[in-house]
Amino acid sequence: MARDHSNIYEQGLDRREANYQPLTPLDFLKRAADIYPNKTAIIHGANSWTYQQFYQRCCRMAGALAKNGIGLGHTVAVIAPNTPILLESHFSVPMAGAVLNAINTRLDFRTIRRLLEHGEARLLICDYEYLALAKEALSTLSNPPPLIVAGDEAPYEPGPGQETDYESYLENGHPDFEWQRPNDEWQALALNYTSGTTGNPKGVVYHHRGAFLNAMGNAMMFGLDNQSTYLWTLPMFHCNGWSYPWAVTAVGATHVCMRSTDPEEIFRLIDRHRVTHLCGAPIILNMLIHADENKKIKFTHRVEIATGGASPPSSVIAGMEEMGFRVTHLYGLTESYGPATICAWQTDWDQLDTEAKARKIARQGVRNITLAEQEVLDPETLQAVPHDGESLGEVVLKGNTLMKGYLKNGQASDEAFADNWFHTGDLAVVHEDGYIEIKDRSKDIIISGGENISSLEIEEVLYRHPDVMEAAVVAKPDAKWGETPCAFVMPRPGAADLDAANLQSWCHDNLARFKCPKVFIFGELPKTSTGKVQKYVLRERAREMGDQ
Amino acid sequence: MARDHSNIYEQGLDRREANYQPLTPLDFLKRAADIYPNKTAIIHGANSWTYQQFYQRCCRMAGALAKNGIGLGHTVAVIAPNTPILLESHFSVPMAGAVLNAINTRLDFRTIRRLLEHGEARLLICDYEYLALAKEALSTLSNPPPLIVAGDEAPYEPGPGQETDYESYLENGHPDFEWQRPNDEWQALALNYTSGTTGNPKGVVYHHRGAFLNAMGNAMMFGLDNQSTYLWTLPMFHCNGWSYPWAVTAVGATHVCMRSTDPEEIFRLIDRHRVTHLCGAPIILNMLIHADENKKIKFTHRVEIATGGASPPSSVIAGMEEMGFRVTHLYGLTESYGPATICAWQTDWDQLDTEAKARKIARQGVRNITLAEQEVLDPETLQAVPHDGESLGEVVLKGNTLMKGYLKNGQASDEAFADNWFHTGDLAVVHEDGYIEIKDRSKDIIISGGENISSLEIEEVLYRHPDVMEAAVVAKPDAKWGETPCAFVMPRPGAADLDAANLQSWCHDNLARFKCPKVFIFGELPKTSTGKVQKYVLRERAREMGDQ
Repeated sequence: MARDHSNIYEQGLDRREANYQPLTPLDFLKRAADIYPNKTAIIHGANSWTYQQFYQRCCRMAGALAKNGIGLGHTVAVIAPNTPILLESHFSVPMAGAVLNAINTRLDFRTIRRLLEHGEARLLICDYEYLALAKEALSTLSNPPPLIVAGDEAPYEPGPGQETDYESYLENGHPDFEWQRPNDEWQALALNYTSGTTGNPKGVVYHHRGAFLNAMGNAMMFGLDNQSTYLWTLPMFHCNGWSYPWAVTAVGATHVCMRSTDPEEIFRLIDRHRVTHLCGAPIILNMLIHADENKKIKFTHRVEIATGGASPPSSVIAGMEEMGFRVTHLYGLTESYGPATICAWQTDWDQLDTEAKARKIARQGVRNITLAEQEVLDPETLQAVPHDGESLGEVVLKGNTLMKGYLKNGQASDEAFADNWFHTGDLAVVHEDGYIEIKDRSKDIIISGGENISSLEIEEVLYRHPDVMEAAVVAKPDAKWGETPCAFVMPRPGAADLDAANLQSWCHDNLARFKCPKVFIFGELPKTSTGKVQKYVLRERAREMGDQ
Repeated sequence: MARDHSNIYEQGLDRREANYQPLTPLDFLKRAADIYPNKTAIIHGANSWTYQQFYQRCCRMAGALAKNGIGLGHTVAVIAPNTPILLESHFSVPMAGAVLNAINTRLDFRTIRRLLEHGEARLLICDYEYLALAKEALSTLSNPPPLIVAGDEAPYEPGPGQETDYESYLENGHPDFEWQRPNDEWQALALNYTSGTTGNPKGVVYHHRGAFLNAMGNAMMFGLDNQSTYLWTLPMFHCNGWSYPWAVTAVGATHVCMRSTDPEEIFRLIDRHRVTHLCGAPIILNMLIHADENKKIKFTHRVEIATGGASPPSSVIAGMEEMGFRVTHLYGLTESYGPATICAWQTDWDQLDTEAKARKIARQGVRNITLAEQEVLDPETLQAVPHDGESLGEVVLKGNTLMKGYLKNGQASDEAFADNWFHTGDLAVVHEDGYIEIKDRSKDIIISGGENISSLEIEEVLYRHPDVMEAAVVAKPDAKWGETPCAFVMPRPGAADLDAANLQSWCHDNLARFKCPKVFIFGELPKTSTGKVQKYVLRERAREMGDQ
């Protein structure tokens, strides 16, 4: 930048090492270990670790990675549920300068193989429960990365000549390993794949600056402090757990890990550890409400629960409040480090009845504090739509908690960031009070149990079936999962024996289980005059079918 | 920076307008106005303003400044107590691209004149109560800036041909003024003068990045949220009120302004507006404890009070807790945007008795979350001192909440930032738990009622008296003010009639009232073999005198 010599504030006041340091969430762990060395950082089953132990394990692991040549620009993939291993990886991997790629454990081995290939993973860390899946994914890779296997309450014990276990690998590092902050806060920190189409994986790259800011913003928004206890019901492989691995650590609160989201176990952990905060898709809320009454433990403290991915229905909000929870509705995407908006509570809503309250909370709300700008733009004119609750426009975002871009996919990055905005693809109205409400989601995404499913990916699989001529997949409402995929299929002429069972087994062979359509409808597909499938007609039909 | 072509995370993932915006606390006001337009933002006496009004007034004022040619690199000085005008200036001035210089209202006109000159102020905004002082300061400037006068509950009404009033000036701007974020988050935001020696004013320059981060960190640390109400007992001209003009606005809480810190008024406002948070030097706490018992209003909610500048004694902490306050001890300097460390509470302290608790709280503690590093270094070796509670070293800081440097004083900046650390000049020990405790402050500073006073400045004035041969000024303990200056004076031979009354009046003519020594001791000054005055001996004598 040219120096303006008439500006007294630009003379001799440059950045120096002492007053300019890259923002990084790694500092949070070091600080928590310095201030709360003996405080419980992580609880998992019968085990627990103090902040000092948490930090030292991360230092060891970072040191071990470095010793094995893993550093700047390298990807370390992890397949694990919400165990301490995955939590540690959010610090240890970037402490070695590398990039964490937390992989959705529900994916099929073919997709995982593609992600390992695309992300050029140098190492795969895998929870013992997913070892078979990992091996299957690695088996046909031409140059597979080494595999490290993590046990759970006890270390994993490999047989002779088998893969290394996590604990032995970690022993190679020293607790005094001198990790460095990134040279630049724009440096990559994490890689998260969206549920894009199979041929074109979209690897969302996070930077240290964004993770630091989003963690700070989430901690503030959610009221976390050093007295908080956070329960890990939200998968950490979703947008790095909405930044909570870093946010909870930032305030020196306690993480409670859990391997699977069993509702009874959630009640038990909330009660036992006096959990104050948790997050999850509406299905988690539903599960809690419909849990066995005998297993619902009454607790006397208020529990904050943040939900997103779909609007929580009023019955769910009411049901949760009855049990002592307070529900906050968030909205975001992988590209925005998770939550980008919050349905911020207004004092005058206190007076409303449950139904009216729920209508307020069902809206996606207003921008988070770390997001610079959020607008709903008319897609034609790129002008902000009026705040009338009716005019539809696209939700666009701008700020420091948006991805660097898609890995090795410049075209997709350019499209996502066209016109100097990040385009969510979600269509919303703006209410008079400035709160947005999404009316039509990015048209090709189905959200089932908090997982994003690409309808295009399912269609591709269906199109590959020899007896399918045309296929279109849309969301069908579902009481349990929120939505499930519903397939409309036009069989190839003469393919008389094509039926649902046939296609179901085809899908099971080619897709992760949660992506398989629950319903198949056969017949002609409605089309526009130019021959495009009218998906809105199919969506209407699926809605009318209701929750069968 | 050279691009590493083997690093997949450095290809096609550059910053863009959509994903990189300068961090600035100005966003906080826009967001609060968007989300809480009708919520009370500011209360002052019988008046109040919503967030929309607050924002629109700032836009108007920024527009008016721009119309008058004030912008990038220009200084706007303000002399005002904690009124809405000064609060607005924290947004309006930087919204015009300019730099806010909030001037300590307790300074004498000579010092103010020097600061206006040194900061090259383009405009002086002055509260009506300080009009005479401002005019005196301007009167002998060769090229005085225009003067704008602010009224209080009613606008200031100038006579014909007199200075402009604030409200008329603001009317020149439009509420839709399109202010811009700074081009760079390193851009100057505020200028705050320390109590340096008179010949060498140290103008501490703040940047947008640091103010954004410090405000976020303070809001988190102090537990501010949109239900909070913040009472303005801490002067905004001290380190921009420790960033609270921005922090309180960030969460959409309510500011309660007050013109002067009368203890009865503080109780009345806490009760009336259900104040939840306030800050102040220990003298404020003392004032509250010693207020007329009849005027102490009992409140049922807990009030958080943060204090700094000196350790709060145990009797003060106990007294405050009895009245329903919780005391947090902070430490920082003008150079660190106010609080850099916090005596973070540890759960096991709950069990301690008041005296033991107070000993814990009296320590300056641990680094704030927005500070990257804090150490106590042996001044000789620059190595960290052991955590033994005994080894003395200098407190040094590193991170993003430190000043850009001193305005037009490269040498002082270089000294302050030597060896890649910011040097506080304060000597501390580190306890076993990592908490620091300052044992000897920067030797030439006396902290009286929360104001820093330079002993060197007083000595300079004394040395100018024709009958003074030698003078040394140190701090004397004072029950009310914490410390007051105490002068040791060796009269010139033959100056038989030099006495305390004589020197007192000399000081009153040449110094701000609060800087004048309360006690004068005459006689030989103790010296080292090399002829240096042994100030520690004088400090010991002053301590022994006690609180006379």
